[in-house]
Amino acid sequence: MSTAPQNLATPSLELVFDTLNGYQRTAALRGAIELDLFTAIAEGNTTAKTISSRIQASEKGTRVLCDFLTIIGFLSKQDQVYGLTQDSTVFLNRHSPAYLGSISTLLGNPELTTAFNDMAGIVRRGGTLMDGEGTVEPDNPIWVVFARSVAPMMSLPAQLIAHLLDAKSGAPWKVLDIAAGHGVFGIELAKQNPNAQVVALDWKSVLEVARENADKAGVSSRYSTMPGSAFEVEFGTGYDLVLLTNFLHHFDPPTNEALLRKVHAALAPGGRAITLEMVPNDDRVSPATPAMFSMMMLGSTAHGDAYTFRDLDSMFRNAGFLYSELREIPPSPQRVVVSYK
Amino acid sequence: MSTAPQNLATPSLELVFDTLNGYQRTAALRGAIELDLFTAIAEGNTTAKTISSRIQASEKGTRVLCDFLTIIGFLSKQDQVYGLTQDSTVFLNRHSPAYLGSISTLLGNPELTTAFNDMAGIVRRGGTLMDGEGTVEPDNPIWVVFARSVAPMMSLPAQLIAHLLDAKSGAPWKVLDIAAGHGVFGIELAKQNPNAQVVALDWKSVLEVARENADKAGVSSRYSTMPGSAFEVEFGTGYDLVLLTNFLHHFDPPTNEALLRKVHAALAPGGRAITLEMVPNDDRVSPATPAMFSMMMLGSTAHGDAYTFRDLDSMFRNAGFLYSELREIPPSPQRVVVSYK
Repeated sequence: MSTAPQNLATPSLELVFDTLNGYQRTAALRGAIELDLFTAIAEGNTTAKTISSRIQASEKGTRVLCDFLTIIGFLSKQDQVYGLTQDSTVFLNRHSPAYLGSISTLLGNPELTTAFNDMAGIVRRGGTLMDGEGTVEPDNPIWVVFARSVAPMMSLPAQLIAHLLDAKSGAPWKVLDIAAGHGVFGIELAKQNPNAQVVALDWKSVLEVARENADKAGVSSRYSTMPGSAFEVEFGTGYDLVLLTNFLHHFDPPTNEALLRKVHAALAPGGRAITLEMVPNDDRVSPATPAMFSMMMLGSTAHGDAYTFRDLDSMFRNAGFLYSELREIPPSPQRVVVSYK
Repeated sequence: MSTAPQNLATPSLELVFDTLNGYQRTAALRGAIELDLFTAIAEGNTTAKTISSRIQASEKGTRVLCDFLTIIGFLSKQDQVYGLTQDSTVFLNRHSPAYLGSISTLLGNPELTTAFNDMAGIVRRGGTLMDGEGTVEPDNPIWVVFARSVAPMMSLPAQLIAHLLDAKSGAPWKVLDIAAGHGVFGIELAKQNPNAQVVALDWKSVLEVARENADKAGVSSRYSTMPGSAFEVEFGTGYDLVLLTNFLHHFDPPTNEALLRKVHAALAPGGRAITLEMVPNDDRVSPATPAMFSMMMLGSTAHGDAYTFRDLDSMFRNAGFLYSELREIPPSPQRVVVSYK
């Protein structure tokens, strides 16, 4: 008969409060990356006083930010000494080869973030309130920013896909990389397979980024570009592999099926389409990272979504593919769908 | 020697990604409250289709929002059926007597949220980038919005404080409620103690809200108001209790000590100052809710902070108080400091 207020069944406002203030978590991490706070700590500045001196900020502001970052999981604190976590050591310290601070620029792009200001309006409409097709609008300059800032983040999944496809076997591949962006996926295949020829398709302004990256990777001689929209350009034929990385989530199923029919026609007999996506389970609420990606698509595109494997398999079958397989590429939260002609 | 990629020691980008997208959690909860989605579910609409019809939104947008709310802890989902959690049943369903959707208006006030847009600048300066004193600026209209929307949220802690002080004993109290705002704390004492006389101090525009609430509570005959700034108005003397609820966090310790000297002088011998605050532990990173409140103060005030009990005890002693006690009022994440003259 206890009515102890600390009973686990007591409702609490803390989650409501924390969620309504959730934007401050975003602001804190973005600010810390901008101030290069993680690098300062990696260099041995571990108190509010020494960190603040290194990042040229106030000691009080630095103390409050470091405490906040400790609470949300990016730092440790013991007595008055702050330390990096494993994630912040690897991804947020500029001296790390896997430094990914640039994704803050990408995910913090004001055009993207302000698209979520009127959530009720988004839900009423069932899609973005941005003009036209939202981020999918042709030649939206967000994609050049995207191509530059997302490239380092895609290096790991690109390697995992090349491994999955056994690129090192050296089979003579003709590869079409649709919406290549930074080009990292096709370039990694060309790096690992000296007999791969890669054609990268994207808008002209974005292909300049891909070409720079191909030059840096030393694969330019086997790298060509095809400017335009994937829905309009003639692909050609005889491809062994067509890459569809982070592309289908921007569109609705009928649009994707029309594209996949073009992909099917472009593949050689026995060819494969390789799709990289945020793929939630059928329940659409797990795993958290891919399942939450639906909201990113709802707010920033007119018709996009995070598709389940069941959804994707259906689109590929409707476009003429024989069957598809779902493959995990841990530790990436993304998944690969391999679809056979 | 295993290098299995699923090893627990593998760094992951998921926390970085989730945090940089954290603003979408805020947007989703605010949108759901605005759409009255929780009430729709409480009324028995439990699928995306029926909920969308009730809230007059698209089915797709409703599905994506409900899935997202499930992931972040505000709904349950079993097969295609959504349900409320305990928190959302109690606080977010408009039919609940404890409905608190109004805090979304408060915490989502654009003047407040945009104050966090330049976190690096805030940390460099060590305080808000808003003009002057930020939200503490005299007659800032945010406080009228605040007084109206925060009142329901403060009803529980007001009852807990009245209980802590044994208001029902009926001792003849003269109470000064500093920065009374909605007035809920003083009004609750007057409701529970028929021999309490309450003087509410705040800016004139805000006191209108307190007076309305005192009228509704039927305590007007024992309720008077004192318009002006707590730092300038003459308090009078002989008070048994002075309430300082959610006030000291706006200012720096010297400013607080000057105020507390005035409070000390206004108290009768044996009188008590009753402070309600977000009080983090000495480590300043626990418990999470009060510790994170430092960031709210850093971004929205020039000199405010979430003070530890050690900080507060020191300010009260410096102002002449004998000693202070820290009291918990579960389930509220806030704490009460009782300081004796």
